[in-house]
Amino acid sequence: MASKKYVYLFGEGRADMKDLLGGKGANLAEMTNIGLTVPPGMIISTEACNEFYVHERQFPAGMKEQVREKMQDLEKKTGKKFGDPSNPLLVSVRSGAPISMPGMMDTVLNLGLNDDTVQGLAAASGDERFAMDCYRRFLNMFGDVVLGIEHHKFERYLEDKKHQCGVEFDNQLTAEQWKEVIKDYKQLIKKETGKPFPEEPMEQLFNAIFAVFNSWNTDRAVVYRKVNKIPDELGTAVNVQTMVFGNLGDDCGTGVAFTRNPSTGENILYGEYLINAQGEDVVAGIRTPQPIATMKDDLPAVYGQFVSTCNLLENHYRNMQDIEFTIERGKLYILQTRTGKRTAQAALKIAVDMVNAELITRQEAINRVEPSHLDHLLHRRIDPDAALEVIAKGLPASPGSAGGKVVFDADEAEKITQQGEKVILVRTETTPDDIHGIIAAQGVLTSRGGMTSHAAVVARGMGKPCVCGCEALRIDYEADTFMVGDRVIKKGDLISIDGSAGQVIIGDVPMLDPELSPEFQQLLDWADDVRKLGVRANADTPADAAKAREFGAEGIGLCRTEHMFMAQDRLPIVQRMILAGSEEKRQEALNKLLPMQEDDFYGILKAMEGLPVTIRLLDPPLHEFLPNAEDLLVEITELRLTGSNSAKLKEKQELLKQVRQLTEFNPMLGHRGCRLGITFPDIYAMQARAVFQATAKLIKEGVKVIPEVEIPLVGEVNELKTLRGMVDDIAKQVAKETETVFAYTVGTMIEVPRAALMAGEIAPEADFFSFGTNDLTQTTFGFSRDDAEGKFLHEYVDRKILKENPFVVLDRDGVGRLMKMTVQESRQFDADMLIGICGEHGGEPSSIEFCHLIGLDYVSCSPFRVPIARLSAAQAAVNNKD
Amino acid sequence: MASKKYVYLFGEGRADMKDLLGGKGANLAEMTNIGLTVPPGMIISTEACNEFYVHERQFPAGMKEQVREKMQDLEKKTGKKFGDPSNPLLVSVRSGAPISMPGMMDTVLNLGLNDDTVQGLAAASGDERFAMDCYRRFLNMFGDVVLGIEHHKFERYLEDKKHQCGVEFDNQLTAEQWKEVIKDYKQLIKKETGKPFPEEPMEQLFNAIFAVFNSWNTDRAVVYRKVNKIPDELGTAVNVQTMVFGNLGDDCGTGVAFTRNPSTGENILYGEYLINAQGEDVVAGIRTPQPIATMKDDLPAVYGQFVSTCNLLENHYRNMQDIEFTIERGKLYILQTRTGKRTAQAALKIAVDMVNAELITRQEAINRVEPSHLDHLLHRRIDPDAALEVIAKGLPASPGSAGGKVVFDADEAEKITQQGEKVILVRTETTPDDIHGIIAAQGVLTSRGGMTSHAAVVARGMGKPCVCGCEALRIDYEADTFMVGDRVIKKGDLISIDGSAGQVIIGDVPMLDPELSPEFQQLLDWADDVRKLGVRANADTPADAAKAREFGAEGIGLCRTEHMFMAQDRLPIVQRMILAGSEEKRQEALNKLLPMQEDDFYGILKAMEGLPVTIRLLDPPLHEFLPNAEDLLVEITELRLTGSNSAKLKEKQELLKQVRQLTEFNPMLGHRGCRLGITFPDIYAMQARAVFQATAKLIKEGVKVIPEVEIPLVGEVNELKTLRGMVDDIAKQVAKETETVFAYTVGTMIEVPRAALMAGEIAPEADFFSFGTNDLTQTTFGFSRDDAEGKFLHEYVDRKILKENPFVVLDRDGVGRLMKMTVQESRQFDADMLIGICGEHGGEPSSIEFCHLIGLDYVSCSPFRVPIARLSAAQAAVNNKD
Repeated sequence: MASKKYVYLFGEGRADMKDLLGGKGANLAEMTNIGLTVPPGMIISTEACNEFYVHERQFPAGMKEQVREKMQDLEKKTGKKFGDPSNPLLVSVRSGAPISMPGMMDTVLNLGLNDDTVQGLAAASGDERFAMDCYRRFLNMFGDVVLGIEHHKFERYLEDKKHQCGVEFDNQLTAEQWKEVIKDYKQLIKKETGKPFPEEPMEQLFNAIFAVFNSWNTDRAVVYRKVNKIPDELGTAVNVQTMVFGNLGDDCGTGVAFTRNPSTGENILYGEYLINAQGEDVVAGIRTPQPIATMKDDLPAVYGQFVSTCNLLENHYRNMQDIEFTIERGKLYILQTRTGKRTAQAALKIAVDMVNAELITRQEAINRVEPSHLDHLLHRRIDPDAALEVIAKGLPASPGSAGGKVVFDADEAEKITQQGEKVILVRTETTPDDIHGIIAAQGVLTSRGGMTSHAAVVARGMGKPCVCGCEALRIDYEADTFMVGDRVIKKGDLISIDGSAGQVIIGDVPMLDPELSPEFQQLLDWADDVRKLGVRANADTPADAAKAREFGAEGIGLCRTEHMFMAQDRLPIVQRMILAGSEEKRQEALNKLLPMQEDDFYGILKAMEGLPVTIRLLDPPLHEFLPNAEDLLVEITELRLTGSNSAKLKEKQELLKQVRQLTEFNPMLGHRGCRLGITFPDIYAMQARAVFQATAKLIKEGVKVIPEVEIPLVGEVNELKTLRGMVDDIAKQVAKETETVFAYTVGTMIEVPRAALMAGEIAPEADFFSFGTNDLTQTTFGFSRDDAEGKFLHEYVDRKILKENPFVVLDRDGVGRLMKMTVQESRQFDADMLIGICGEHGGEPSSIEFCHLIGLDYVSCSPFRVPIARLSAAQAAVNNKD
Repeated sequence: MASKKYVYLFGEGRADMKDLLGGKGANLAEMTNIGLTVPPGMIISTEACNEFYVHERQFPAGMKEQVREKMQDLEKKTGKKFGDPSNPLLVSVRSGAPISMPGMMDTVLNLGLNDDTVQGLAAASGDERFAMDCYRRFLNMFGDVVLGIEHHKFERYLEDKKHQCGVEFDNQLTAEQWKEVIKDYKQLIKKETGKPFPEEPMEQLFNAIFAVFNSWNTDRAVVYRKVNKIPDELGTAVNVQTMVFGNLGDDCGTGVAFTRNPSTGENILYGEYLINAQGEDVVAGIRTPQPIATMKDDLPAVYGQFVSTCNLLENHYRNMQDIEFTIERGKLYILQTRTGKRTAQAALKIAVDMVNAELITRQEAINRVEPSHLDHLLHRRIDPDAALEVIAKGLPASPGSAGGKVVFDADEAEKITQQGEKVILVRTETTPDDIHGIIAAQGVLTSRGGMTSHAAVVARGMGKPCVCGCEALRIDYEADTFMVGDRVIKKGDLISIDGSAGQVIIGDVPMLDPELSPEFQQLLDWADDVRKLGVRANADTPADAAKAREFGAEGIGLCRTEHMFMAQDRLPIVQRMILAGSEEKRQEALNKLLPMQEDDFYGILKAMEGLPVTIRLLDPPLHEFLPNAEDLLVEITELRLTGSNSAKLKEKQELLKQVRQLTEFNPMLGHRGCRLGITFPDIYAMQARAVFQATAKLIKEGVKVIPEVEIPLVGEVNELKTLRGMVDDIAKQVAKETETVFAYTVGTMIEVPRAALMAGEIAPEADFFSFGTNDLTQTTFGFSRDDAEGKFLHEYVDRKILKENPFVVLDRDGVGRLMKMTVQESRQFDADMLIGICGEHGGEPSSIEFCHLIGLDYVSCSPFRVPIARLSAAQAAVNNKD
């Protein structure tokens, strides 16, 4: 029986075979087929990888034979022979998953070298030193990647050798000295693994394939997939490609380029290359490379060829490409092309430019931008008027600005962030092992590496500000400091970085709110044309409302009135109101609050002229406005022991008693929301009056306002009935008192499961519903967010007990089911019932898609997420056409 | 247009017209029609009352004319005339709701008297003193009930008068003296109301009808309906009945009797009467009446007639009757019959006796006993071996025993009870205004009044122990004391009462658990024959389990393991386990706990030999086992200020830090249940091991055990999958180690909404489900029970925002809907899925009915509620035949 086909020559594949051949392999195949100069090679499919895992890490039957066969094809194509001491064929072995995972998977170059073949390479290249350099690199990579010997052990031998020889740089070592290094490396391999280095090239190859398959499940790969939500079941392919050498002399080189600027989106070739180097030197960020444009002078013919290849690839793929190339003795080889990662800013500009160039459609453009990345554009930048103490400059590797405490270690970055501090991760260079630290940090600063170094690529992908290759920095990990000139910056000191300008600044400098670029505006306009969902914002102040409107909000979906109660000048009055012993005293305090609240509502309604504003009546339990019981207890104990001020002691004891009476075991499930409205109707009455007085005043001023009064935490129709009755009465009174006619609506949040279960009964009493999915998630799961996120939710997500943190991504199965029931059952009563969402999920793309799918009228989110919501809503509409 | 019929003669009604004529009226009609001697009368229907409230307290059109017409019929029947000075017809006016509300509604007797007609009454009776006595009673009642003048104001005049006249008792006053009282009363009425007393009888009548209608909505009536769950929409009828007089001499009398003993159920005529008295004297408990049996000697002919009337009525109604009668000059009149209220003990005995007498069927018998009343029988009684210091004896008015602090005021009884204290309410006599105090108290003790006095009737209805008419008590409300002989008992002193023996005892005496009477057993056997639901108990100790089994539990539905962790000798180990800095230290503590838990499970499994035992793994958050943060804070502040013991200060500060780390904002929604199991698997592993080691041990001893391991708080199938995997592994290990084979199941609680919403997905991983409706109610409503019940739930129920407290009576619409979904969707996966309930609702009759309706397999409740559940389950089956 013939075995299944596991191995493909590049000529046998196509770009759309990514699932089977991996992204890299499919693109190598595609490029081969469209006639580009790609060093020939073969691809071992992801199917082989998956079967490898099914069969307890055994290669599938027949795979090895197929590899041997295809190797003969490669030998024919190149005229070299694998393992031939006189004319050896050398190959690279690279991983290639269906979804690009930069830096995650391990690579081995120069495979096929051994003590015999290295002589052939020396002869063929006419450069023994080069051949030995290739051999020692191979031994190092093979030892590290395939045999699992730590890289620094090889490094230490090499450092010792250079010291011995009195040289500073690798390229100062002679062929003979490299031979000694090679001997040492082989001894190291034998010592570490108990077995000699495998000289047999086919054995090397199978070991390397085995290692690539294994690398699919290293910790760092698993973490990357988790962060990027890549399924574990995809598997990786293995690319075995004949070697070309960028390090055979000054007519050689290697580089990486993007067809457009991945940081700004500008349509200018962007990249770096190194003359006389192997590819890993560029990507690893160890040597700082030259801008690609300098190639024009160094190797003009090759440059021209490269530019037209880039154009060809971009047009072919209809997307910005990230291309790896090598020049061997003046000949250009394309080693890889893939869709280039880009900042949100670049994604926007590229998408809009490509629509304008008629390369893609508007709907494609909408799908080209990851909504959550827009967030990066909406982050703050340094106030241009601020006086900055810039202490160093590096490469502007990922735009945006950030400030935080200096940390030098990824683990520490994570730890300190968990304590609620902001940090800037400072490293000589970063490696894939630092990913969790980059995730945790506000921004990244490195002293080495270029724009395509690990730190730069990863930070851009995450939209974190990053400054790279800031060579003025001297980092001392032992002392937990870095120096710039004579200046010492210690761990914990505050710095800021500007990833757009490449600046390192002392202190936590003032930041400004972002504005939208023309491309951003353009894309969002296109998005608005296709989306079905309305987009509102959650805003509590006129300033926030104005910002939201600027970002395109079509109304306020949640205006929280409790924030107004917390203001410095009001809190004492609020406390007096809460602690009032009598009706009159309570009313006295409420009378003081009334004009203040009226002002609040006046401002916000005015800012949203012509658009609806949902004003939620007081929601939190009253004890949130009172002093903390524990603080009081300490004060009282102190007063009691010192015995100095018995009047004050008595007063504090009385206050503590009152605080205790209001304190709750589970405030989240306590005396709050409409429950307060029912038991302390005066508070809601004051708020309703303030809303309507502001409304009347604005109407008299000729301002069109649309107030929507929202009763929180309803779980039973009688709650709403009772309170809506009161609100309606007050509206009538105010209309009469002010001699105005105004429209308003009264609705409720759906934020406890019972509200959803009873939606059909509640709907007749409500003009609108708004899902409070933060609380609905808490009650549906029985998770207190404040407790869960710190105590077990992290572990739940890590261990895949839950796919996502349900407070971030809406739980469609549980919470979503309640939402669906609510929509269906309330729309049975009123087919046009206005239903929105105002929980944090209203600004999260996957949740927004769900809201689109169940037919909500709008989502409401924080002002800065409004553009994200507009784009997500458009994507939901584009991707879910019936 | 002829108006609607609002007024019915007694001859026009039937017993089944209770909704229209009220209970009293319908029975008067029925008795009239079966030929008993009932003074003729008319009934104004409940419809009239309801229309009265619809039309802002106006009589419906045509009602007055109909009353006048029917009055003419009464005049014809009696040969007297309403308002005729020479031969006046007098009537009583009484309320009569469709459901009996004893003592709640107001009554007026002797209506029709005025300065003229009183002369006619004097002439007709030949007794002027009697006529004047009737008149002054009428003025008092009319003034109080109809005109709203406080009773004590009339009383004070009378007391002054008696003092003036130098007499002690009412009946010592002469006709002339009564006339002076009458003059004073009329002046009082004029002074209080601003209008003279209405002499016109028809005006008196309409005023009285108006007052009865009004009395439907007095505070005390509203409270009674709320306590007894009587709908407000029923309305009351008004009975206008011609007067007969029990106070015309010694061949007259009045009384109340039950056809069987309402306290014990014995088939012996039971009641009291007073010679030469009006009915109110008996019911109000002002004069202590004679046992009914003494009538045999006093008025033998009437007695014989009365006994056969009682038999006739009981056979006619097929139920024990509560009968009011009056003897006027040797002639027996029946004034009222109704189904008699009875203690649970009596209800049981009567039901079983009537089945044995073939008067009713077994299914009827099942429905004759209110399950919640069984609770009374299952309460404690005084240990017969205890040395008792009995200080007084009274009437054994309501069985059962109770102890508590003495209080003299209903408000105070309520207040102190809310502070968690038990109280005995001690009063001279109780009135309907004391109801809230009786509800709050453990038991009631009065110094006056008989077995049918207010206190006795109400206490029996509530199943509270009550001792009445304990005349040795001298109560001094001013001093907050009572005296018995020389002994002074102060407010707050501990006493006990034995309502079965009529004893008052000093101190809080030792009580014994109850046992089931043969009738109880019999009825429950019949119940077991018809019920579909299984009944299990919630029990945490072998003793509780044994008790539950004795009461008929068919298994343990919930064994909480955290109670075992709280034991004095274990808590320090548990704390060490929680605060362990290292794996080893934690394991060390767990190893100490393992044999203890094994013992626990051994005991409980053994006690339930052959029956299933659901053992829930640890549920509460770990901080519940640690010292209180506030206490620590005070200690620390003290240590800090005194500065004496810095080592101790440091230790306490460290402990506080750990406590704080574990403290939660909303522990109800925090790190508990299976979330602990996931993050601290060692604890669950220890518990599972303990269960299986106990199981293996018992199997070796030949004891058949059925352990069911329950994982709490699951909301997502992966939680259960993970933990069941661990439990299954441990079971395998223990089976291997002990070389035994044992069966067990693993299931989960359904106690957060998401569990219900995902039941279809969770079911395949579970062998059983058990509804934890306490938590499910908390999360579905978003109510923290601890906070809600103290802060707003009471008001919610009072204001009818919620029909019931959902923690007491299962919320069928919201929580119940989730339960229904769970049952349907899990049974789609497994039609035989074992599903029960272990929340407190499992012992509440209406909730049990719901569990029957949605097809649960069993309910589980506290051991003492097992009989209630058995009976409720039977009633659900009887009343819900498809």
